[in-house]
Amino acid sequence: MALSEFALIARYLAAVGAARDDVVLGVGDDAALVTPLPGCPQALALDTLVAGVHFPGDAAAADVGHKALAVNLSDLAAMGATPQWALLALTLPAADAAWLEGFAAGFGALACAHGVALVGGDVTRGPLTVSVQVIGAAEGPALRRDGARPGDRVWLSGRPGEAAAGLAVWGSGQRHDARWRGLVGRLHRPAPRCALGRALAGTASAAIDVSDGVAADAGHIAAASGVGIVLQAERLPLSRRLRAWAGTGAARELALHGGDDYELCFTAPPAADAAVQAAARRHRVPVRVIGRVTGSGGLQVRDAGGRSLAGGGYQHFGGEEA
Amino acid sequence: MALSEFALIARYLAAVGAARDDVVLGVGDDAALVTPLPGCPQALALDTLVAGVHFPGDAAAADVGHKALAVNLSDLAAMGATPQWALLALTLPAADAAWLEGFAAGFGALACAHGVALVGGDVTRGPLTVSVQVIGAAEGPALRRDGARPGDRVWLSGRPGEAAAGLAVWGSGQRHDARWRGLVGRLHRPAPRCALGRALAGTASAAIDVSDGVAADAGHIAAASGVGIVLQAERLPLSRRLRAWAGTGAARELALHGGDDYELCFTAPPAADAAVQAAARRHRVPVRVIGRVTGSGGLQVRDAGGRSLAGGGYQHFGGEEA
Repeated sequence: MALSEFALIARYLAAVGAARDDVVLGVGDDAALVTPLPGCPQALALDTLVAGVHFPGDAAAADVGHKALAVNLSDLAAMGATPQWALLALTLPAADAAWLEGFAAGFGALACAHGVALVGGDVTRGPLTVSVQVIGAAEGPALRRDGARPGDRVWLSGRPGEAAAGLAVWGSGQRHDARWRGLVGRLHRPAPRCALGRALAGTASAAIDVSDGVAADAGHIAAASGVGIVLQAERLPLSRRLRAWAGTGAARELALHGGDDYELCFTAPPAADAAVQAAARRHRVPVRVIGRVTGSGGLQVRDAGGRSLAGGGYQHFGGEEA
Repeated sequence: MALSEFALIARYLAAVGAARDDVVLGVGDDAALVTPLPGCPQALALDTLVAGVHFPGDAAAADVGHKALAVNLSDLAAMGATPQWALLALTLPAADAAWLEGFAAGFGALACAHGVALVGGDVTRGPLTVSVQVIGAAEGPALRRDGARPGDRVWLSGRPGEAAAGLAVWGSGQRHDARWRGLVGRLHRPAPRCALGRALAGTASAAIDVSDGVAADAGHIAAASGVGIVLQAERLPLSRRLRAWAGTGAARELALHGGDDYELCFTAPPAADAAVQAAARRHRVPVRVIGRVTGSGGLQVRDAGGRSLAGGGYQHFGGEEA
């Protein structure tokens, strides 16, 4: 099937996602035209997924479409912004109508669920790469990485480590084992925490979405805020299925260092405990305190006895990200 | 040299482009925060360049940086919008500091020239691909593709065909021949017509930037507007160096069908002739009438004697783009 770029865009990407009144002109012209929310700063994020690097080369097209949008919505969630519009740059090895149909279905379902309109697209030929750019309205105070203060608690949403376990399952003979389907689902279909992020704006002092692993991303908050963070390894919320698959010790390692979970790691003063828990209950996302913010020392991970499990190894982010 | 993604972003991409008061938070958090112009629609565009497809694999890094931004600014020019912010998704085979430095220099110089701030970036590992997303303010009436009306003139800025000739020169033994350096420059360093585009908003009835070739892109206006367009081949403005390199006949073919010129093709009623010419003089861009809009018939190209040189071949865009 040989369709031109124009036909591909028109057929599969012209009407993807939610219908929004603030879209003046969508896919099909040189640029889209949209109406920003009056008096409201905008959050702009862009993330790229490369086949074989950010998702398995044999992932289903619908999963790739879902994940490409999800990782970007997760960035807006970590800013406390409400997603509005997305643009898509899709580089494909060949004009494959079946693949595009699946991709558009996965992308579109998540876009509709979050009220996002796809307003622009560019389809090019080349190695499979998906860049998505999302724009959201930061109606409340934005959640930045640099607001953590000594004495704050460090919170985490959800159950980390499952996506990393899912990747191992996907690459092994266990792929079709129904017991681990949930882990694979967490790899392919991350759930961006947009509602929780919005609810935390004004309450949390700093936030980041967990893409590189809880330890690394907590380290990013520490570096950006110029503080230390001590994570209590035994407080990491490990799901039953992750412990069943990996054993408790390995599960903790996956929870600390596995990536791709797209949960929110955030800090808040103890006085905000009730507000954080109310927000989490309202949006039905489990949250747990996993550590605390200190005056300095970069990122440290400690076991139940207070012994350091990992430390200075993460401090180099501080120097490099400045 | 093995730098992490974080270090690469911080070192080369954190302070690229213009400083703007409307950037609340730039590169380095989960998302950028910007303040949109009050009461003004936004134009959003995104274009991807793949090595070996959209630019030669051995192009200089600074040229790739320039072109990746230029093709996107050209989209905003074709909407009559003023560029404000850019985001960059860069996929690189290896962490190459020298290449990134060159890329940032080429990208940054053009960004500064157009007052654009780079507010977000994502560097990933994979085959060389550059996606840029730009946002601009559409202060006047936007220039769309669908506003051409029968009786309008078809105008073109600049001298088309040079970029396509430059590509042939680059791939041949003529690459280092000083006589053709200008042609190669037009391939690697297109000049987006932002000022002209803004000046034409409210005057032109439709516009597109010429990336696929004058004939194909005029055909896109015809299809989007539901009109016919007749191009007069002998009116295409051929540069002296293009004629010297290709001969007049081949030069005309390159001007009609060569891509990558990033000039503006636009339509306007005859009553707007003086306004179009004044805008072009003010911004020192040559413009010329190259055809007219008719009631129907898709795109036709005619020679001086009125004979059809190309016709129905372009009409299929009408069916596919609808």
